[in-house]
Amino acid sequence: MVLYLGIDGGGTGCRAALADRNGQVLGLGTGGPANINTDVEAAAGNIVAAATQALAASGSGAGPADLVAVLGLAGGTMRAATDRLAAILPFARIRIVNDGITAARGALGSDDGILAAMGTGSVFAVQRGGELRQVGGRGFLMGDEGSGAVLGRSLLSQAMRAADGFHPMSPLLAVILEEFGGTEGIIGFGNTARPADFARLAPRIVASDDPAARAILDAAVAGLRAAIATLQDGDSLPVVFTGGLGPHYAARLAGDWPQRPARGSSVDGALAMAMETGALESGSPETGAPETGAPE
Amino acid sequence: MVLYLGIDGGGTGCRAALADRNGQVLGLGTGGPANINTDVEAAAGNIVAAATQALAASGSGAGPADLVAVLGLAGGTMRAATDRLAAILPFARIRIVNDGITAARGALGSDDGILAAMGTGSVFAVQRGGELRQVGGRGFLMGDEGSGAVLGRSLLSQAMRAADGFHPMSPLLAVILEEFGGTEGIIGFGNTARPADFARLAPRIVASDDPAARAILDAAVAGLRAAIATLQDGDSLPVVFTGGLGPHYAARLAGDWPQRPARGSSVDGALAMAMETGALESGSPETGAPETGAPE
Repeated sequence: MVLYLGIDGGGTGCRAALADRNGQVLGLGTGGPANINTDVEAAAGNIVAAATQALAASGSGAGPADLVAVLGLAGGTMRAATDRLAAILPFARIRIVNDGITAARGALGSDDGILAAMGTGSVFAVQRGGELRQVGGRGFLMGDEGSGAVLGRSLLSQAMRAADGFHPMSPLLAVILEEFGGTEGIIGFGNTARPADFARLAPRIVASDDPAARAILDAAVAGLRAAIATLQDGDSLPVVFTGGLGPHYAARLAGDWPQRPARGSSVDGALAMAMETGALESGSPETGAPETGAPE
Repeated sequence: MVLYLGIDGGGTGCRAALADRNGQVLGLGTGGPANINTDVEAAAGNIVAAATQALAASGSGAGPADLVAVLGLAGGTMRAATDRLAAILPFARIRIVNDGITAARGALGSDDGILAAMGTGSVFAVQRGGELRQVGGRGFLMGDEGSGAVLGRSLLSQAMRAADGFHPMSPLLAVILEEFGGTEGIIGFGNTARPADFARLAPRIVASDDPAARAILDAAVAGLRAAIATLQDGDSLPVVFTGGLGPHYAARLAGDWPQRPARGSSVDGALAMAMETGALESGSPETGAPETGAPE
């Protein structure tokens, strides 16, 4: 018996979905964090726990060695970590990709299209004729344009510039300076804040008519429009916006390209890729070597 | 006997200069790091060591309790830390300010003018009629516009954007991608790099005719021009450029305002401020309470 396992994993937890060869979902499972950048062994334990839960729910009697697994993980392009993880996991076949890939496969299905995932971070993917390419991302420090964390950081930076007289003061910037305790308080916040902490400011920017907030958002929308236009490359593929800021950007870019809701989640995408992996390989799955890395 | 002590301190070390009431320098000293954000006690020990060295060199027979001291320290606006430091130090009178203030006082003397300190970080100051105001700075994460660290980060970010097709590839960006091991290598570098590590790329940007490097520099020059124009507020005060990138910006902005070389260093500025502090206070220096905080 061969069954198919999709895993979505990241810093906050992991999810598993198990299906038979017809795509019938037999069981689901969840587990703790699967952050392979910080602790490969702990990630492996939590992934196996989620898979075991899904196996138990299936009532199939199958075990880990019966599974063709695709894992979409944050940090799934970091080769040293994925190689170590693949060596630990007990599944018959293992393919590890970046979670942006499985998110795109879940959101777009097998159709041509573009994913703009706009949450605490940002990442894009484009799919043409079954070829999926992930771009953007690159993290809070040097990338993640238009993300909630970058918008929040821009707001704090503008507040400090306004305090210095380098930018017009606005009502929202004045409120932010007051709340944080001025420039010194903002610098202190930045010394320890994580991207998610900066992203908590994003809803206030999106909801605001404040001129500084609008300028930050207008610049982010212009950047996102340019990025999607680059990925369209003259086409007019449907665009799927996901993440907490997805609806906002979808509304701002409603007239530019056709839009579609996401077909499914990252774990759905991982499961679909597991079934494709199994279908491509007619031989005995137990003998295949683990395969890791993004498909590009 | 009252003597005057100027201290310049930061994460890499501290320097001391001792003078008599006529401004005659009697002794110099150096000490270890004086980073009051990480370790106030260690900073105090290194500051006292530098002062003791200067006292010994002076041959004056004076001790710490004879000193009117001004300290220009990185993080000198962080009130909790400066209060603790002032309580430890054995000097008769103590005034602690941000090192940007003493750098400006050293560079400008008592003349009206503007300081643009463009090194690994960036900070500005404007002095009018003896009133000194420090602006900018704010650190690598949310400020330090035009600094070496920010220029280096921009170059790495553009290289990754070029790899994604979001920015034209240039010869320098291609070299950077190759050197760092592509996008993944740049992200890995950014996970542990300090601002000084990013700043090591700045000389290559400044020296390059590469279109991406020129675009980064042109934007930085435009930002610096706007910042100085704001500080000029319609005046035409002389501008002093310091730091490793100072000469580059000075050349690029040569036609905008009069320029002047720096009169002195941050420790010179601290010493001058110590003498002013002493001159203002005719009473017994031993009875004065420590005073901390930036003068604004």
